[in-house]
Order: sequence, then structure tokens, then C-alpha cells
Amino acid sequence: MDEYQSAFMHLAAEEAKYGLAQKEGGPFGAVIVRKGEVLVKAHNEVIKRNDPTAHAEVMAIRKAGALLARFDLSDCIIYSSCEPCPMCLAAIHWAKIKYIYYGCTQEDAAKIGFDDAFLYEIIRGEHPAQKIGMAQHDRTICWEAFKQWQKNPNDDLS
Amino acid sequence: MDEYQSAFMHLAAEEAKYGLAQKEGGPFGAVIVRKGEVLVKAHNEVIKRNDPTAHAEVMAIRKAGALLARFDLSDCIIYSSCEPCPMCLAAIHWAKIKYIYYGCTQEDAAKIGFDDAFLYEIIRGEHPAQKIGMAQHDRTICWEAFKQWQKNPNDDLS
Repeated sequence: MDEYQSAFMHLAAEEAKYGLAQKEGGPFGAVIVRKGEVLVKAHNEVIKRNDPTAHAEVMAIRKAGALLARFDLSDCIIYSSCEPCPMCLAAIHWAKIKYIYYGCTQEDAAKIGFDDAFLYEIIRGEHPAQKIGMAQHDRTICWEAFKQWQKNPNDDLS
Repeated sequence: MDEYQSAFMHLAAEEAKYGLAQKEGGPFGAVIVRKGEVLVKAHNEVIKRNDPTAHAEVMAIRKAGALLARFDLSDCIIYSSCEPCPMCLAAIHWAKIKYIYYGCTQEDAAKIGFDDAFLYEIIRGEHPAQKIGMAQHDRTICWEAFKQWQKNPNDDLS
């Protein structure tokens, strides 16, 4: 860890405190860095936006994509004040971000009431009880759009 | 499956085709239903918004939360034209949605170039190569916001 990494994590921690003071969401912040410079800062805005997906990392990715006018963030690094939940971890992968630095751990988050262990367990198939029911039907009608995409894909997206 | 379920899935499939025709993103649609009625329709808008998190299910959750002015969607059901990726599955859990109906499968999505199997493998710890580097540092400064939250939590959020 060098002094720059530490400075970026400090910014993520400050964002977490800022969002909390503004009562916009939970105590989480994130910073996306590109070419050694801060591209965007973000914090959890679940309360402010009434958006359960508005975690700090997701907000940072949304801002970065809008700013760079592209959804490929493969030249970016993310600093998060906490280890990402499965939603954010997957979002970071979809964004093609190459490195994640984090401060607090999943266990720290659980200590203050944000326990995402159940989500990891569900995705790993290790959870004793499925929280959400799932059922498949009407595949044929849903395949129609897939078929259209197959004929004329946007190669950048897939 | 009853006729209503089939009708809601048809709407999700239509959304997928609409988003594709508008070139707003991949061929995916979703509908959130509350008390037997359509609350919101959404489709993948990754291209339109330059937002890698703008999958159909995430867009539907954002719209539903904004419309109901709350981030708890536990009285809602989601219909998705495709089995959710790990990001969307986690988002649906955070939103506390109780049931997921889906049309196409993960395998169908992989056939047309949208392969999220690697994400499931990564979260399960089964992927042979980690795609993203991860490292922890500066936990102490990140804990400060957690400590503030502990003193004065928003009980609705955690």
C-alpha cells in the first residue's frame, strides 16, 4: 500500500461519513480512480433515492459510466470503504473494473447490522432456507428478443 | 402458472423487444407486480445510460422504489424475461421482493453471448482464475463511519 492508495481510501471513508451526515443511506463510500486521479466519489444513497441498489459502489459505477460516456470501466480501479456485497461485486465485474481496494470487511458490516453473508450463502447454494421463491415459465416468448439479438448483436455489449 | 402470470411474462418479453428495438441495451425486460397489478415495466438500458448496472431487474427495482417512495418492496413480485444474474439476484434480495418468475435461463443467455456463469463461479469461490484483484487496507479510517452508525442507526435500513 502506498500513500496514494491510502489517500484514495481516506476519500472513500470521508464519503461514507458525508452520506451518513446527510442521512442519505448507510455508512458506505466509494471512489473510482483512473490514471492515478479521482474520477468520481460516491456514497450509499438507498434512503435518499428509495433505491435498494444505490450502494456506494453501484453509485460510483453509474457516475463513472455517465462521466466517461461508456459502460466499460476497464481502465479504472475502485476504492470502497467496505468489502463489496455480492450485488456490488457482480456490478464491479460487469463494469470490468480491474482492482478493488476495501477498508472494512463483510464481518465488520455484519457487526453494525448490514449482514450480506446470507446473500453469499444463497448464491453459493449453502443457505438452509431459500428466501425468495423462483419459478420458470413462458420461455418461448422470452426467447424471441434473444433470437433478434442473435441476428444482430451489439458486439460491444455481450 | 395461471393466465395472469403468463400475461405479466408477456409484458416482460415485450419490454425486452422494445429496449432492443430502441438500441438501449441487451434483450432483457422485467415487470414488477404489486397486488395483482403492474407497478412498473423496465428493460436493459446499459447502452443508453452507459451504466453497466442498468439491467432490466435493477431498472425495475429503481423505478418501483421511486414510485412507492420506499426501498422495501416486500409486497412485490418480479417477472424477468431471463433468469437473474448474481447482481440482479442480490438486488432482488436487498429489495426484499418475495418471488421471481423468469422466462429464459442462464444457459439461454450464455447461448447469445451473455454468460454470467463466471460470476456465479467467482462468488462461489469455484472460478479457476480471479478476474479482479482485491486487497484490504486502512480499515481504521473506514470504521469511523461504521462507529457513527452504531451510535445512531437507521433501523429501517439495516
